[in-house]
Amino acid sequence: MEVTNKYVTTKNHIDGAPKESDFELQSTILALSVEPGSNDVIVKNLYVSIDPYQLNRMKSYSSSQKAINLSTRHSPGQVIDAYGAGKVVASANPGFEKDDLVVGMIGWEEYSVVRGSSMLKKVAKEFPLSYHVGILGFSGLTAYGGFYNVCKPQKGEKVFVSAASGSVGNLVGQFAKLFGCYVVGCAGSKQKVDLLKDKLGFDDAFNYKEESDLKSALKRYFPNGIDIYFDNVGGEMLEAAVDNMNISGRVAVCGVISEYTGTGRRSAPDMLDVVYKRLTIQGFLAADHMCVYTDFISLTSDHLRHGTIHPLEDISQGIENIPMAFAGLFHGDNIGKKMVQIAED
Amino acid sequence: MEVTNKYVTTKNHIDGAPKESDFELQSTILALSVEPGSNDVIVKNLYVSIDPYQLNRMKSYSSSQKAINLSTRHSPGQVIDAYGAGKVVASANPGFEKDDLVVGMIGWEEYSVVRGSSMLKKVAKEFPLSYHVGILGFSGLTAYGGFYNVCKPQKGEKVFVSAASGSVGNLVGQFAKLFGCYVVGCAGSKQKVDLLKDKLGFDDAFNYKEESDLKSALKRYFPNGIDIYFDNVGGEMLEAAVDNMNISGRVAVCGVISEYTGTGRRSAPDMLDVVYKRLTIQGFLAADHMCVYTDFISLTSDHLRHGTIHPLEDISQGIENIPMAFAGLFHGDNIGKKMVQIAED
Repeated sequence: MEVTNKYVTTKNHIDGAPKESDFELQSTILALSVEPGSNDVIVKNLYVSIDPYQLNRMKSYSSSQKAINLSTRHSPGQVIDAYGAGKVVASANPGFEKDDLVVGMIGWEEYSVVRGSSMLKKVAKEFPLSYHVGILGFSGLTAYGGFYNVCKPQKGEKVFVSAASGSVGNLVGQFAKLFGCYVVGCAGSKQKVDLLKDKLGFDDAFNYKEESDLKSALKRYFPNGIDIYFDNVGGEMLEAAVDNMNISGRVAVCGVISEYTGTGRRSAPDMLDVVYKRLTIQGFLAADHMCVYTDFISLTSDHLRHGTIHPLEDISQGIENIPMAFAGLFHGDNIGKKMVQIAED
Repeated sequence: MEVTNKYVTTKNHIDGAPKESDFELQSTILALSVEPGSNDVIVKNLYVSIDPYQLNRMKSYSSSQKAINLSTRHSPGQVIDAYGAGKVVASANPGFEKDDLVVGMIGWEEYSVVRGSSMLKKVAKEFPLSYHVGILGFSGLTAYGGFYNVCKPQKGEKVFVSAASGSVGNLVGQFAKLFGCYVVGCAGSKQKVDLLKDKLGFDDAFNYKEESDLKSALKRYFPNGIDIYFDNVGGEMLEAAVDNMNISGRVAVCGVISEYTGTGRRSAPDMLDVVYKRLTIQGFLAADHMCVYTDFISLTSDHLRHGTIHPLEDISQGIENIPMAFAGLFHGDNIGKKMVQIAED
């Protein structure tokens, strides 16, 4: 059986903020059959993840972006890799059967052929499938690994999270509260700020767009200083946080969204503060924290069962809406984990 | 018995590069006697340390310099605290006797009254007294604690040291070579560069003043990247190092001399590199590494006995030359540990 497999790709490298017109929908013919012994699995994709870091792969090469080569670089016209969830339609891999629900690296396309099994994982039906893309997926692991392994929290410490209503930030705040920290988040609208305080249990939150002086704002929210800053944005906010950090403070650098589009100015944190306050600024990728994956799934599943953690999802419908969903990330359109549902569960 | 005790002090707060005219020599009358039971010790100072960080204490208060409040701030007219070595002339402290040689926090003055014993330590006569101010003193501990505890080296790793002929840098390079790392240093003159390569055993060294593009220079000296950067300078050099760091690289931020005088521009390392290469940038102070003090003294003394480590000292004579020696630090005048000998041993 053959299908038309629609996929989203880029028309060109993207060096500024992405626009819908940078993308186009293409299609190929795909045979839904696998060669025996090949280990291949064909997945009908149901949910795909929409993440800011994907923009870094779409840029043209320049020396300042060379670090991105360490992840997979995307070429215009190719299928765009993405984390996501789907249903197995054909398998030559003994680990997977037709109709298994799976998560892993698929793509912004209707069907993905996954070669080998290491990139896929079967999931049970206890939770909605979308949870496995967000709170139980890579966003969740990023928040968990970053908070526990990089921030090395102690109970009672004061935690600041930027982009706190984003896919990772909202979970960092929730993990930090559950762990016994004092947590303040910032976000870019009143609606997001209210949600952080009223629904997610943050101790406080503020709209950074209403603050003319971020250093003073943080001083107001943290009169006794910040112990941990979970940084999703970089830029001026990182400078302001460093200014307000306590001795032995830790900054986990998860993302630099203010700089991904090349529009924000680079962060220049005061290195005298870094020395005298013995600060640690540490970048990380979730993939380095697979060692805590089992703990992460176990703890987060328990909290989901008890209703003590809240999945925050922002799901658009239809593969044709992926470009809009992606471009919207850089305007702060999403509230929580951005996904696109490509087909019905 | 009374003496005239000369001391160096500042005439004003110093916010740019220090000039000799910012300082003056003052004197008081000091009775060389201690009150029984007081625990006081009077030290005749022989060598005093001249360190860049002391400038941070001399600045006027500004919000950007608030971190410095965490160390002792200096007020114009006061005696200036400094690490140094001397001889006990009077003691009401059972731990010290007349003629003991001691090191610890004294001041830029001929005699210091040290209250309590925690700031002083007796030293044996095995090595020249000046060694206890430099290679066996706080500069040595800074290099040792920073290299072993903060950089967490592995044999064979590639280490870059800036201000590599300075009091701390030259020892970091020597410790790193003895540990089995590949070490390249940078300094500001041909004489210094030659010394690093020919006398101190650095694998390579370069004069940063002759490089128009620091990123390319580091790429040339580290074609396979830098694993550890021991940063004494901040500014552009930190940016260039981050650009050339390998995955899981570590930056130990020991000093930011390019920014102490307020003349250099702030460092804005690429945070995308920090994330994708999972870099750790960590500030530290030697005082936090007292836990390795015994190991440091033991290892370094052994190397001194075997001639496998080289003390690099730059000693001026006479208390009246302290201002010139101090101002000279910010012009790169010193080669190795800067001290002033105030009196004969």
